[in-house]
Amino acid sequence: MQPFVFAVAVEAIAPSLHDNTGDIDRLKKAVSAAKGMALTIPLRHMAEIAANFRKAGFKGAAIINDLPAGAVLVDFMAEQPVMLPAMALDLGTTHLEASLINLVDGRVVARSNRENSQIEFGADILTRIHYAAKENGLRRLHEIIVATINELATDLAELAGEKRENIRALSVSGNTTMVHLLLQLNPFHLCREPYIPMVNSPDPFAAAEIGLALHPAAPVWVMPSIGSYFGGDLISGIVASGMDQQDETCMLIDVGTNAEVVVGNREWLIACAGAAGPALEGGVARMGMRAGPGAIEHVEIDPQTLELRYRTIDNGKPRGICGSGIIDLVACLYLARIIDIRGKFRLERCPDRFIDTPQGPAFVVVGPAEAAGGEPVVLGQVDLDAMMRSKAAMYAILTTLINQVGLEFADLHRIYVAGAFGRHIDPRRAITLGMLPDLPLQTFQSIGNSSLAGAELILLERRSRERCRQLISKITYLELNVNQEFMIRFSGSRFIPHTDTSLFPSVPVFD
Amino acid sequence: MQPFVFAVAVEAIAPSLHDNTGDIDRLKKAVSAAKGMALTIPLRHMAEIAANFRKAGFKGAAIINDLPAGAVLVDFMAEQPVMLPAMALDLGTTHLEASLINLVDGRVVARSNRENSQIEFGADILTRIHYAAKENGLRRLHEIIVATINELATDLAELAGEKRENIRALSVSGNTTMVHLLLQLNPFHLCREPYIPMVNSPDPFAAAEIGLALHPAAPVWVMPSIGSYFGGDLISGIVASGMDQQDETCMLIDVGTNAEVVVGNREWLIACAGAAGPALEGGVARMGMRAGPGAIEHVEIDPQTLELRYRTIDNGKPRGICGSGIIDLVACLYLARIIDIRGKFRLERCPDRFIDTPQGPAFVVVGPAEAAGGEPVVLGQVDLDAMMRSKAAMYAILTTLINQVGLEFADLHRIYVAGAFGRHIDPRRAITLGMLPDLPLQTFQSIGNSSLAGAELILLERRSRERCRQLISKITYLELNVNQEFMIRFSGSRFIPHTDTSLFPSVPVFD
Repeated sequence: MQPFVFAVAVEAIAPSLHDNTGDIDRLKKAVSAAKGMALTIPLRHMAEIAANFRKAGFKGAAIINDLPAGAVLVDFMAEQPVMLPAMALDLGTTHLEASLINLVDGRVVARSNRENSQIEFGADILTRIHYAAKENGLRRLHEIIVATINELATDLAELAGEKRENIRALSVSGNTTMVHLLLQLNPFHLCREPYIPMVNSPDPFAAAEIGLALHPAAPVWVMPSIGSYFGGDLISGIVASGMDQQDETCMLIDVGTNAEVVVGNREWLIACAGAAGPALEGGVARMGMRAGPGAIEHVEIDPQTLELRYRTIDNGKPRGICGSGIIDLVACLYLARIIDIRGKFRLERCPDRFIDTPQGPAFVVVGPAEAAGGEPVVLGQVDLDAMMRSKAAMYAILTTLINQVGLEFADLHRIYVAGAFGRHIDPRRAITLGMLPDLPLQTFQSIGNSSLAGAELILLERRSRERCRQLISKITYLELNVNQEFMIRFSGSRFIPHTDTSLFPSVPVFD
Repeated sequence: MQPFVFAVAVEAIAPSLHDNTGDIDRLKKAVSAAKGMALTIPLRHMAEIAANFRKAGFKGAAIINDLPAGAVLVDFMAEQPVMLPAMALDLGTTHLEASLINLVDGRVVARSNRENSQIEFGADILTRIHYAAKENGLRRLHEIIVATINELATDLAELAGEKRENIRALSVSGNTTMVHLLLQLNPFHLCREPYIPMVNSPDPFAAAEIGLALHPAAPVWVMPSIGSYFGGDLISGIVASGMDQQDETCMLIDVGTNAEVVVGNREWLIACAGAAGPALEGGVARMGMRAGPGAIEHVEIDPQTLELRYRTIDNGKPRGICGSGIIDLVACLYLARIIDIRGKFRLERCPDRFIDTPQGPAFVVVGPAEAAGGEPVVLGQVDLDAMMRSKAAMYAILTTLINQVGLEFADLHRIYVAGAFGRHIDPRRAITLGMLPDLPLQTFQSIGNSSLAGAELILLERRSRERCRQLISKITYLELNVNQEFMIRFSGSRFIPHTDTSLFPSVPVFD
């Protein structure tokens, strides 16, 4: 463990007529002797450091930023610090999650989250890229996200009984567009062939340079990306899962609006990303919603009696269905034969469970009496079609990738499923739908918010910082936008569970 | 040769769907491939660099700042530059001299100089250190010197037909106090025992950080010092003379208000500095002046006829006497027996050449008819006494130092004499006075403004940059303020040429 910022105990020989080393040079020498490393001291902190060093009687704690280009001495304290707070940030398109870590002992001292305030300029990445092209658009998107991060930093500091100005470092995991907007870099080419970022792996910089009001010497570490559609959040996922360190071949799946997938081991890694449609994030069904209070996250339907049971997050009154709920629902509808293998409603199975809507008949998941606000929670054919496209895309992405490296799913030691999707999904149901491969259930492992977990590791371990920078040159990126095989596989996956039912031996097939 | 800033020809593979490297990462990779070096790209230049790189079709010239902590890519141009101007500065207490160098071919394209505008806050270092302790004093001294350097940079740019904002680097040689004031570091301890600088060897920083209006990416290299009284100007002298690279032992003498002396060779170096009094800089005699137009720089007196001839700088009407003129004058007065071995006037030798002044009789060097402004140029006993102290201090410093290393003057291969003092002094006269050791005249070599010459080398050669940082840990500094031997030797040197006349076989002795 070598945190991003750490303290070195220093006890220098006091100056005398026989030793006219300058204060700053004396301090450097003492630290070099203690830690055997070269370091620089930036001019902007020099006067304060020298004054503190002298005042403390030439002994105390030197505070070091451990940057890839070399150690930088940024502060001096009379006593060894017991607290050096640093912030890890998962910079999501819709949501920011963050934690405050004490770099002295590695403990998480606070967690918080906020909506991404850029949403007012566009809910999705593409809208924001277009907004950035307008006059002052980029600047505005940049400023509003910086303001939100500052607020989140204040939240964390208050929770921990600290001052925001005392936060000594920040690590950021985000998709490539969010990183461009944070750094005020033009995202124009991100969504235009051949989809080239302005930067994948930015060097660390001072938080103050982008307007973050943390400690004046706080450095920012941005997790590198490997392309416009494979961001630092995924690199964090690889680091957090440890798949790049394992002998066995594993897979990492992260699903949001895009599905991003990595396969590999300590020898090699291959990655791809593809539009899986918003269904899986809960964004497509009229009643779809992000995983949150009142979201139906789990559904059971008795195949005989057709009795439907559900569970909502926080056990609130149902307000909608989140991604895992929709997967459960559609899988159960299939097993109860309320939809057919093409994902079309079989109204005749239970006509009384449907209501008419302007878009046609819709399946009632929760009646108005039980639902929050008295509005029934329903699933229409349009929603179902979107779900079918999403699950087909997902499976096509996975098969294209595994085929690319000449492996079969059975060769995978472990499949890590990241994010809220991974936390709530029931792999059994996803297999029924033909969305995830038909493997023993213990193959699947939810790893939670690995984007944040990776950012936390970065703050704590030099090895992880070095690793993520090496990682990106090790990963082969497969561009699906121009991949013929993907399109063929996508078509084959638009049935439940698949046109080739032999791929899913555990799933019952109805004719 | 590896200049402080240089261009690297780059031709990168254009981006494609099969190569989604980010623009900045692509550029880094291409430069690393061409030069085999790791580099960083600062966030504040990133957007512009990426835009230029793309606009130029991914080929052109990457501009690199070659800093000790690693290469930093700061700019990108479509064409290989033919001109990369950089400024070398000798930051003197009274005077600034500077040159503009084209880092592409190493040529000096302009030279200029300005008075040190801090003089209005105090003519000497000590007054300025006291002024710095007043409210806003340090800030004011800092701002005024930065303003002067900006003006000097404008002068140079205009002379070279360039823009100041295009100057890509600055190197600064100055004494330790001037460097502290330039960097706005408190000089309080510089003049207080044990005379410890806040910093001897500051790391390079951005010119903009101290308010210099050069190129936004221009780095500043400050020559390191080894103590409060042995500054970067002297380290420049060592670098310019090359004495730290030679097998033979040499000496370097730089005389201003202080005399700073180094002895050594490639194996070892020892240095000291001592107050030699202002006489040698022309500051003490009532008619003393800095070397400049109208200053008497050379004097001859016929020992028989006592006829006096002189030469002024630029052949102007005499206005005063500079350091070398005073040395000549006093040596000739001694040889003509107008002063005795104790440096006292022998009025009886030529009573008509003296006039009465409130301070007693004074020797008339130039009568009122010939002198500028109709005021005679004279030398009084007070001036003579000051000169005697200065020359005694000088010789005591040299002998203390040479004795410290167990050598004799005859062991010196070369004595480099720096600055205006070196340029104008006649070593023969200085030997007569017993100020410089009685060695063959070819031992003495004037090396001009070696403070500026060192700063120029720093801009052009990485080897010199590395050398000056290594140098400072190689030099042993001898503190004369507490040196008993120095005081004894000082007393012994207060005769012409010396109490021990055997040390000066070439000088005639009168009893």
